[in-house]
Amino acid sequence: MRCANGIEARQVNELFINIDPIQAGGRLTADAMKAVIAYGDGYSVCDNCRKPNRLDYISKPPIAEFHRDLASWLNMDTVRTVPGARRGFQAVSHTYVHKGDPVLLTSLSHYTEFLAVEEAGGIPREIVADADHRVTADATAMKIEEVKREFGRVPVLAFIDHVDYQYGNMHDVKAIAGVTRQYDIPILYNGAYTVGILPVDGKDLGVDFVVGSGHKSMAAPAPSGVLATTKERATEVFRTTSIVGDVTQRKFGIKEPEMMGCTLMGATLVGLMASFPHVKERVKRFDRELENNRIVMEALRSIEGTKVLSEYPRRHTLTRVDTIASFDRVAESHKKRGYYLASALEDKGITGVIPGATKIWKFNTYGMNAKQARHLADAFVAIARENGLPVV
Amino acid sequence: MRCANGIEARQVNELFINIDPIQAGGRLTADAMKAVIAYGDGYSVCDNCRKPNRLDYISKPPIAEFHRDLASWLNMDTVRTVPGARRGFQAVSHTYVHKGDPVLLTSLSHYTEFLAVEEAGGIPREIVADADHRVTADATAMKIEEVKREFGRVPVLAFIDHVDYQYGNMHDVKAIAGVTRQYDIPILYNGAYTVGILPVDGKDLGVDFVVGSGHKSMAAPAPSGVLATTKERATEVFRTTSIVGDVTQRKFGIKEPEMMGCTLMGATLVGLMASFPHVKERVKRFDRELENNRIVMEALRSIEGTKVLSEYPRRHTLTRVDTIASFDRVAESHKKRGYYLASALEDKGITGVIPGATKIWKFNTYGMNAKQARHLADAFVAIARENGLPVV
Repeated sequence: MRCANGIEARQVNELFINIDPIQAGGRLTADAMKAVIAYGDGYSVCDNCRKPNRLDYISKPPIAEFHRDLASWLNMDTVRTVPGARRGFQAVSHTYVHKGDPVLLTSLSHYTEFLAVEEAGGIPREIVADADHRVTADATAMKIEEVKREFGRVPVLAFIDHVDYQYGNMHDVKAIAGVTRQYDIPILYNGAYTVGILPVDGKDLGVDFVVGSGHKSMAAPAPSGVLATTKERATEVFRTTSIVGDVTQRKFGIKEPEMMGCTLMGATLVGLMASFPHVKERVKRFDRELENNRIVMEALRSIEGTKVLSEYPRRHTLTRVDTIASFDRVAESHKKRGYYLASALEDKGITGVIPGATKIWKFNTYGMNAKQARHLADAFVAIARENGLPVV
Repeated sequence: MRCANGIEARQVNELFINIDPIQAGGRLTADAMKAVIAYGDGYSVCDNCRKPNRLDYISKPPIAEFHRDLASWLNMDTVRTVPGARRGFQAVSHTYVHKGDPVLLTSLSHYTEFLAVEEAGGIPREIVADADHRVTADATAMKIEEVKREFGRVPVLAFIDHVDYQYGNMHDVKAIAGVTRQYDIPILYNGAYTVGILPVDGKDLGVDFVVGSGHKSMAAPAPSGVLATTKERATEVFRTTSIVGDVTQRKFGIKEPEMMGCTLMGATLVGLMASFPHVKERVKRFDRELENNRIVMEALRSIEGTKVLSEYPRRHTLTRVDTIASFDRVAESHKKRGYYLASALEDKGITGVIPGATKIWKFNTYGMNAKQARHLADAFVAIARENGLPVV
């Protein structure tokens, strides 16, 4: 079925249990879907734009109110919406990083953080995660000291992922922020896998910036995201324009250069807003998500040879496994080779594992109910048994 | 009727003839609406992302093909999608402009171009539009010479709006590009009001960059836009990443820092793609749009005292009028004061004029049919007559 010329209507989340690592938290709520339909047109949220003519001041639809609620929910002072978490990284990086400045990242940082540093001319310096793939406060202090020796000064900014994209491990941002604060290094909390998934309290964490992703974890259309900060940092990253036309002497009011003026518009913003009440509720139920994840993990671990590469027990639903000594052994002789796994899962109504992947792969159980979790658990075990793998 | 908690379902384009200056070209096509519904979920277009893992290489949905078609349609070599035209300005500005560099804009440039220059640390220098509010090649040459005297060097980049947002006037970009080429100044064509509205041929214009807005002029959801360029400039603005993790030695493949990696995702991109076949057709019918605009303009001009501030005859449907000596005279004594005009229009099924505006205001007749144009024309005349304004 096509929805437009040459474009198949996507029905992935209607027809399958989807365990794609990056898609689980970005499925729209029914309210977001309705809002997207109502606000699909380009500048749809601008009907009632009045002075001072900036998007986050619009009260109908209640954009201004949403901004206040969002900041309060994250326990930060100010928030802006951005077209994806990466645009939040870019704005912060561009504010603090200049050519040749050292910037703190981690050995598990997402590539978009590296690009934000590269674009600003910074030099990345990675804090090394430990043998359990966890970034610690001690390792942070060591890296800062190393940077001091190398550059004669401390890093100008630190990017720390609360839950990293590689292992879905949870890193002790609060302790790390304690260290960066001692050195007066602004710290950005990357909540791409947490804001909208589990409770986040920016002030308690002691961070300068909280970045979240709408399309990854807040049940919103792409591209969408949030950038929250403190009163103090807001004057830096959300400074208003000071450029003046040399002939016309034009100025541009309270537009913010790092935001490129008005922020997230139309369907993406209203989708984010419509899902927000649901997102606020769902973060309180994250324990249920971990319980469902545990059902799946126990099944996977019962298949002999399967290793969990993520920290265990799990503290997040995004998980990396090594099935070289289990599912991959089947691939060697299966007529579908490595594709048999994704294919067998699809036969059981499950999608989201990269076709061909049987060695090291990731999945995300976020958003499923207990029945679906048991179905997924049973499916893994059944596929193992059908292919002669021992299950203990 | 609400579409979500606290959010009224928007029905502006269903219930009214909408003459809002910025909304006319961004109304979704039916295909885009269907596509947005099918691809509303966050990372919806990433189901079939395979190596080299960059969004513009995805073939299902046909994103790669869309990029090729779009570049060819603009007669440019390479194109990327961006979250709004402004993000195209930002990428180009960031590539060419460094702190203290003079940059050529015009006295009619959009504020987002100024912000792009400000963010890169550039110094804006405006080419002055002539008495008819048109930017000319001669004025461009004069300004470049003036910059040379002031800075000892030519501007590093020029932003020229083909049709400006203030008057909707059409500026001779081809002649202007002839001048900037003589000085080896890269030139960006701002097609926010033209790409998707009328035919644009980048090579014929002789420009280095063509920027378009999806939500303003390509019947797409916000934020969306396009940035097209030549083979030569593509190696500069679309250069691939070269940053390396100091510990992990990680590199990030063919991701592009100015694009912040993968480009426009999900509902916004698929909306742009679904509307594209319709957009390609509608630009061929721009003469009909001008004919409809003429019907409205003749009616407005028949109301004594009304002045057309835009060039006349019109070459674009975005138009600025001065009704200080006509509609504004009524406002002085009307019980609704200046609000009577928008109110009377609304009674006749017309929206998009800022409530209270009766002095100098803008509207856009784009996308209406002849019957709607006549209705709008008749409405203006009827409101004038009802309020005792002479109509000639």
